[in-house]
Amino acid sequence: MRLEVLPVEGIGDVRPGDDLAAAITTAAPWLRAGDVLVVTSKIVSKAEGSLVDVPVDGDERAVARDEVLRAETARPVARRGQTRIVQTHHGFVMASAGIDASNVDRAHLVLLPKDPDASARALRTTLRERHGLDVAVVISDTMGRPWRNGLTDVALGAAGISAIRDHRGEVDPYGNELSITQMAVVDELAAAGELVKGKCAQVPVAVVRGYLDTPLPEADGDGAAVLVRGADQDLFSLGTAEARAEGLRAAARLPDHGRPPFPVLDELDFEKALTRALATISAESTATFAADLLPGDDSGRCRVVCRPADSGGVALVSLGADVQRLRAALAADGLGSTMETAEDGRGTHVVVTVS
Amino acid sequence: MRLEVLPVEGIGDVRPGDDLAAAITTAAPWLRAGDVLVVTSKIVSKAEGSLVDVPVDGDERAVARDEVLRAETARPVARRGQTRIVQTHHGFVMASAGIDASNVDRAHLVLLPKDPDASARALRTTLRERHGLDVAVVISDTMGRPWRNGLTDVALGAAGISAIRDHRGEVDPYGNELSITQMAVVDELAAAGELVKGKCAQVPVAVVRGYLDTPLPEADGDGAAVLVRGADQDLFSLGTAEARAEGLRAAARLPDHGRPPFPVLDELDFEKALTRALATISAESTATFAADLLPGDDSGRCRVVCRPADSGGVALVSLGADVQRLRAALAADGLGSTMETAEDGRGTHVVVTVS
Repeated sequence: MRLEVLPVEGIGDVRPGDDLAAAITTAAPWLRAGDVLVVTSKIVSKAEGSLVDVPVDGDERAVARDEVLRAETARPVARRGQTRIVQTHHGFVMASAGIDASNVDRAHLVLLPKDPDASARALRTTLRERHGLDVAVVISDTMGRPWRNGLTDVALGAAGISAIRDHRGEVDPYGNELSITQMAVVDELAAAGELVKGKCAQVPVAVVRGYLDTPLPEADGDGAAVLVRGADQDLFSLGTAEARAEGLRAAARLPDHGRPPFPVLDELDFEKALTRALATISAESTATFAADLLPGDDSGRCRVVCRPADSGGVALVSLGADVQRLRAALAADGLGSTMETAEDGRGTHVVVTVS
Repeated sequence: MRLEVLPVEGIGDVRPGDDLAAAITTAAPWLRAGDVLVVTSKIVSKAEGSLVDVPVDGDERAVARDEVLRAETARPVARRGQTRIVQTHHGFVMASAGIDASNVDRAHLVLLPKDPDASARALRTTLRERHGLDVAVVISDTMGRPWRNGLTDVALGAAGISAIRDHRGEVDPYGNELSITQMAVVDELAAAGELVKGKCAQVPVAVVRGYLDTPLPEADGDGAAVLVRGADQDLFSLGTAEARAEGLRAAARLPDHGRPPFPVLDELDFEKALTRALATISAESTATFAADLLPGDDSGRCRVVCRPADSGGVALVSLGADVQRLRAALAADGLGSTMETAEDGRGTHVVVTVS
C-alpha cells in the first residue's frame, strides 16, 4: 500500500450558494474513484451560507462575537482569560465554538457547517451523480487538545468512509488480543490533508489517494458523528478549575440530609474512605469524632458521634463547621451523610450517619 | 507539493540490542534524503531494551503490571473502572502510561522509550553517519484523547524536523492575522504514517516523502518535547471527577483563617461573587447573613455577620455548618475568608471577613 496526499489548487474564494463539487472538479480534473477528499470546513460553511454579519470594529464587534458564541454554545467547558472552550450543538469541544474570523472579510464570522456529516454526504452525492466521481469526503477543521501544545486537523464530517478502523478481535503474532482497537482514521486523514493544505497558501482541499479500495461502498456510513463522545462518557467533560469550583459549591450546598453530590468516582473500601475523611479534616477540627460501624440495614453503614471541645457557644459553632467539613470530605469519596444535632447527659453533640 | 506515505515492510521482530538503522535501511533500500521516517515507539523500546519481565498469568501478573504502572507514573490524572490515565515522567498523558502488552511475548511488557527525542536523534545520526541518509525521524505512539472517540497516532520524539509549523505574523488575503498559529505537524505526520502502518500487519515504520525540503537542517531541533504541555498550563490537568473531589476535599480542609484553596478561576466582580455565594447556600442555611462592604484596607473587602436562628445549642451548631457553607461558596469564586466567633448583646454570632 502507498498513499499520496495531493493539494487541490486554484479553488479561489468561495461564496454563499457556490457549487463546491463543480469548483473542486474544475480545479482537480485528475480526481479518481476511491480518492478521499479532505475539505476544509470553512469553504463548506461559506458555500452553505453559515456566516453571520458582525460590525467590523469597536465594542459592537466584541458584543456581537459574544452573542454568536452564546448561540453556538451548547455547554461551556472551560475558560481562562479570553479563551472560551465550549461544546457546540454538534457535540464538538472547541475554542470559541469553532467560530472563525480568518479567511473572511471583517464584516462576517464563519460558523461551523450546521451538519457536517450531511454536508459530506451531499458533496459526495453531487460528485457521484453530476460528475461521475465515486469518492469519499472528509470535512475537516483545526482543533486544540488538552495536554499537548499545537493544533491538528480532525474530521467534523465524513461520507463514504468509516470514521473508525476497528481492530477488535484481532490477534498479534504473539497471540495477544490487540489492546488498541479503534483508530479514528478520518481524524488521521484530516491530519494528513492538513500537512499539504497548511504548507500551501489558499488550498482548502487535499486528496488522499490509495487509502480506500474501489469500488467504495455505496452507503455513506455513520459519518464522523461517531467520534463525538458525550460529556457523560468523558472523563474530561469540564475544565479542572471549573470542576474544582463545582466541588466547592457542592460542599456549600450539602444539605443536612444529603445524597453525595456526584456519582461515586471509584468503589473505595468504606472503612478506608471513612479513615481518609477523618484524616482530611484532622488539622482543622477541634471537635472529637467517634465512629461506629452499623450492622447492615437501610439506616446507613456508620454513625459518627461528633462532640464539641467544650460546652461553650464558640465550641458549638466550631462543631457545626467541623461536621460540615467531615461531610464534605466523605462526599469527596462519594459517601452520602446526614446530620442530627442531639442532647444527652454529656451535652449537645451531632450524629452523622454515613451511607 | 505532493506527499507520499509508504510502508517499510519486512522489518520483522526487533530484539534488545538490534540495530534499527540497519534493519530499516535493509528493508527500505529506497529511502531518500529528505524523507520523514515515522517509527513506532514499540520497536525503539524493544531495540533499547525498555522491557520489563512480568509473570505470564494470574494475580502475580496483575500485581506486577500495577507496580510497573506506578513506576512509570509521574502523576495520576484520571481513572474510571480499570482505566488509569496518568502523566508519565516524560510529561505525556496516556492510558496506562503507554505500557503495552501487545506485539510482545507474555513474559514482557514494553515501556515507552526513556527519552524519545534522544532516540530520534540517535537514529537520525546513525542513518546519516553509517548509511549516508539525511532523513528526519518521528517516533510515534497511539494515544486517546478527551472528547473524541477513537485513537490517533502522535509524536513522542522527533529529530531533523520542527514539531510545530508556526503561522504567527501571517496575514490572510482579507488582511486578518491568522488566528490558528501553531500546527503540531509532527503529530500530523505520525497520524499520516499510522494510516499506512495500521492497514498493513507488522509494519512498524512508514515514510512520508515530499514534506521536507532538502537539504535538511543539520540541527536536530527541539524535538517533540515542545508539544508537552505542563499540568500548570493545562486547563484539563485532572479528570473532572477527580477535580470535583479535590474541590470537596478543599472545602473539608478550609481552615478558620484560610486563603482560597485554588487560584482564582476568573476575575469576577467582588459583589457579584458575594451575592452568588449567599444565593448558593440560601436553600440549606438557617442562619441569617448581613454583609457590609469595608473601606479598602488590608483587613478584607467585606464583613459578613452571621447570626443563628435562635439562641439554642442546635442553632449554634447549624450556624457553624452554615458559615462553613458560606466560606466554601466564596472559595468557589476564589475568595478567601476568615471566621471569628464573637459575643455581643444579641448573643453568639460569627463574623466572616472576606478578602
